[in-house]
Formats: sequence, C-alpha cells, structure tokens
Amino acid sequence: MSGVANIKNGLRLSNGLLSAVEDDVLYHLGLSKRDDLAAIFSGTKFVFTGGSTTRIAHWAALVATELNITDGSETQCLSHTDRYVMYKVGPVLCVNHGIGCPSIAVMLNELLKLLEYAGCQDAIFFRMGTSGGLGLAPGSVVVSNGVLNGELKPYQIQYILGRKIERPTDIDKQLVNDLLALNEKIAFPVVAGITMCADDFYEGQARLDGAFCEYTIEDKMAFLQKLHSLGVCNIEMESVCFAATLFRANVKGAIVCVTLLNRLVGDQVVMTRAELLEWEERPFQLVIQYVKDSLASQN
Amino acid sequence: MSGVANIKNGLRLSNGLLSAVEDDVLYHLGLSKRDDLAAIFSGTKFVFTGGSTTRIAHWAALVATELNITDGSETQCLSHTDRYVMYKVGPVLCVNHGIGCPSIAVMLNELLKLLEYAGCQDAIFFRMGTSGGLGLAPGSVVVSNGVLNGELKPYQIQYILGRKIERPTDIDKQLVNDLLALNEKIAFPVVAGITMCADDFYEGQARLDGAFCEYTIEDKMAFLQKLHSLGVCNIEMESVCFAATLFRANVKGAIVCVTLLNRLVGDQVVMTRAELLEWEERPFQLVIQYVKDSLASQN
Repeated sequence: MSGVANIKNGLRLSNGLLSAVEDDVLYHLGLSKRDDLAAIFSGTKFVFTGGSTTRIAHWAALVATELNITDGSETQCLSHTDRYVMYKVGPVLCVNHGIGCPSIAVMLNELLKLLEYAGCQDAIFFRMGTSGGLGLAPGSVVVSNGVLNGELKPYQIQYILGRKIERPTDIDKQLVNDLLALNEKIAFPVVAGITMCADDFYEGQARLDGAFCEYTIEDKMAFLQKLHSLGVCNIEMESVCFAATLFRANVKGAIVCVTLLNRLVGDQVVMTRAELLEWEERPFQLVIQYVKDSLASQN
Repeated sequence: MSGVANIKNGLRLSNGLLSAVEDDVLYHLGLSKRDDLAAIFSGTKFVFTGGSTTRIAHWAALVATELNITDGSETQCLSHTDRYVMYKVGPVLCVNHGIGCPSIAVMLNELLKLLEYAGCQDAIFFRMGTSGGLGLAPGSVVVSNGVLNGELKPYQIQYILGRKIERPTDIDKQLVNDLLALNEKIAFPVVAGITMCADDFYEGQARLDGAFCEYTIEDKMAFLQKLHSLGVCNIEMESVCFAATLFRANVKGAIVCVTLLNRLVGDQVVMTRAELLEWEERPFQLVIQYVKDSLASQN
C-alpha cells in the first residue's frame, strides 16, 4: 500500500475486463468507446478540473487566449449530458467535477477510460479550486503535498462489496516542487501544505453555521488548531479521491486551491465579488504558467 | 439513536448558534438571510430534488402544467450560483442536488436553513432519481422503505472533528405507504424496497466496467445476490444523506427512484433515449399525483 516519491507517468488502468468489452458507454459524459475518441481527444497533455461549470467554461476561454489558440474550440462542449461540461483547447482538456468525492469519482472513472481509449497515456491532471485556509491570508494558494481524509489519515476510504478499503493518497512531489518553483513569476503567495478533504461543507469542516452543530466554538477551535499543528493548510472536498484515483492509475496530478478565508478567524465566506473572481483565478494562473513553460521546453 | 415509525412533521434545526447570527450567507445558493427569503419562499409545501439541472428545469415546467400555474415562475431560477438550480412553482420548490452525498449535503444544509428563515416548517421532501435495480424489470419505480450505506448498515457516516459519527437513516413509513397506495392511479410498477447508497458509480456498486476492477464477476454476483437477499431493490448515490439529514431535521421525506437496468443481468446503462426520457419521468408522475391529492384534500 505504500507509495513512491515520484510517479513515472503513464496511465495504467487495473481493469483487465475492459479490453474484452466491445463498446463502453461513458454514461455521465454522454460518450462511448464506439465514438472516434482518438479523433476528438488525442493530443491531450493536461487536464484542468474544478467544481463549477461556468468556471470551467471561463478557463477554456482563458486557455485559448494564453496559448493563442483561435479555432473556437473553447466554445464547443464535448460532454453530451448536463452532468459535466468538457472543452478541449489545444493540449488542455477542461472538465468540471461537481462537489465532493463521489461526484469527482464518477468523472475521473469515465475520463480515465476515455483517455485510455483515445491513446492519451501521459496527460497531467490539475484540480484547481477554492478552499478554507488555516493560518494563511485569504487569497493564498496552496499546492497540496499531502492529503488527509476525515479520519485524518492519508487514504481514500472506499466501500467495495461491503468491505472498507483504504487507497493511499500519494502526491507527486516533483510536480509540487515544479509548481512552487514558479513562485517568482507569480504575484500572489503560493505555499505547499497538507490538505484535508471533508465530505461536507459544514460539520465535516467544523463550521458553526450549518443547519446542525452539536459542538462548541472551543471544540471547533481545538480541532482546527490540531489540523494546523499537523501541517494542514486548507480544507476542501475532493482531494482525497483525486489523489488516490490518480496514484492508482499511475497518472501525475496536482491539487492547487486558493483559500477564501482563514478558518482560524471565522466560518462565513464574505469576500467581495471582485476579490472572489480574482482569487478564484489564481490557481489557474499558476498552472497555466506551468503549462506554458512545459510546452516551451518541448519546442 | 433509534428512530420513530412516523415522524411528526416540523423542521427543527439543531444549531442554537444560528439564532445569534445577524446574517447568514447561503454560499452555494447565492442567497443570504438578509434577502427577504419569506417573500420569495413562503408557501413552500413540497421540495422536489434530483441530480441533474435540466431534469429540475423540466420538472418545474411540468409542475406548472400539472397544477395550472401560469405566472411564469417555472422559468425563474432562484439560485444565484452555478452550483445548484432552484425554481419555485406554486407550493413546489424544485432544486437539484448533483451527484453523491457530499453534494446533496451542501444543498440540504443550505436549503433547510433557507426554509427555516422563510418560515416554511412543514415542507415534505422528495428525492426522485435514477438507480440500478436488483431483480426488477427496468423501468420499475422503487419507493425506499429503508436505506443502507456501503457497510450495509442503516446509517450515514459523518466525520466530525476527526471522529466517525453514525446518523440513522430512518424513513417515514406512512409517506411510503401513501405513495404505494397511489399504485392504482399509475400505469407503471411501483414497489417498496430497501435502497443501498454507494459513494461511486463503479466499484462502489460492484460494476465490472469502471476504470478499476479488482474483483471477479463471481464476487460481484455473490455481493449483488447478498444485497438482494437483504431486501435491497436498488442502488443509487444520495439516499443515505437525504434520509439521515431529513430525519435529524424532523422533516418528512421520501426517496422515489426508477431502475434503469437490472444489475443481476448486466452493468451497462443501454436503454434507448426515448425509454430513458419516459422512465426518468416516472418518479415525478407518482409524486405529482401525491401532491395533487394532498392539495385537493386541503381544499
């Protein structure tokens, strides 16, 4: 069950039964193995994923601008259901994942199969999102160098055939370092830290302002201080599934989230709309710099 | 921790800290306590929730037709983010919940607070969706009379302040019986049965066609037969959170899902588009009959 420090890239699905399947309906993307997936998706080198559908469409437009791609692909949604949106702009495939691990699990399962069928074995994944920070100025960007579940363990918990299975959430440390090394090209604070993944936004993140709260403010602060002392820099809701699934598939991935508030101070998300829009774009700004540098070094 | 057979209706949030809060931002709905929530949401008697955004918009239009409401409210989205859509058509509030328990948890937390602030204490909730069936003809509708988690226990698992908490998933049996009693007015099969809630669509539901599969077809069939022998009629991804949250809040709710396939026969979802559209509407047809009968009995 132990991981490796640097994952040698190369998508590797562990389902030997798939090769015998003539067709495979990727039900939530509205695509199937019978579609000419290679024609549509070949050349995918980077996958950008985040929660919200409009943020994904916005990223697709930004990718087109940043990479000088003028074929209009940023407006063509390649998912044929309303569950997920998907745009391929040059080497970058942008897909949303919704809220929480089950939602991102469905998307990753079908996207990994899609990339395998399309012959895109070496894409690097980036989950970019928002999060609650611990001890950081709001607007700081955290690159996750570890991921803990709600039990504060570095595993994704799966229930398979009625049994509890723990999947390690190992992170590619080289990719973390490569992203941190871009710090000097970036005008906002970027730090590496451990991310805690919760299964809800309220009690799971020790908030006091959910529909239910059966603990005190002292209990909450003791828990957040405990997280802080463990090196946890932020809390969000998808990192455990993202890290464990990609590690299992032998795919490189990084989690890059901006912190919208300092949870050691309060619970409510109350920045201005202008701040939110600027901060939400920070993970993208860091990652697109990485992509541009990668593409330049290949030329 | 034990439940009651019939829940006396009446929303009851357990967070005493909320009353002291001057404002409360319902972040994922884009609304706040400072908005005149009573003006917008008062009179809500029924909440219809399901996964997909376009299905919700479609339901809103159907509710307007079925209840002869001609104010155009079915086209006015009341959520101000792209996370959830929400339409209030007469006494029916239609809201999507995305995929999986974390996604529905966020929505339910914010919606229960919204209804409390708007003075709507007695709304009845219906989760309507699609599911994989066990031993039923595809197109059958299951009204859940029990809900099991991935450990096959009738609890929602929450991790709060690092501790594992189990919340009972008690179902209002009277509401189940009231829905089943509508059978003779309905042209498709409706049964009561236990629902299993999984955290993903593939391994969590013992499918053989995910990106990963480390069990055999014999393991899968043994597990599904075990579920079947426990009385499990269908598998979906939100019922545990829905049932546990509403029971905790003292709110009546029912889970009504159509089965798209018989998992004892296969894994892939392969009905025709026309069948899918007709079957997807069956839970709605049952529930709108309940709503119409309820409204008629109040006049």
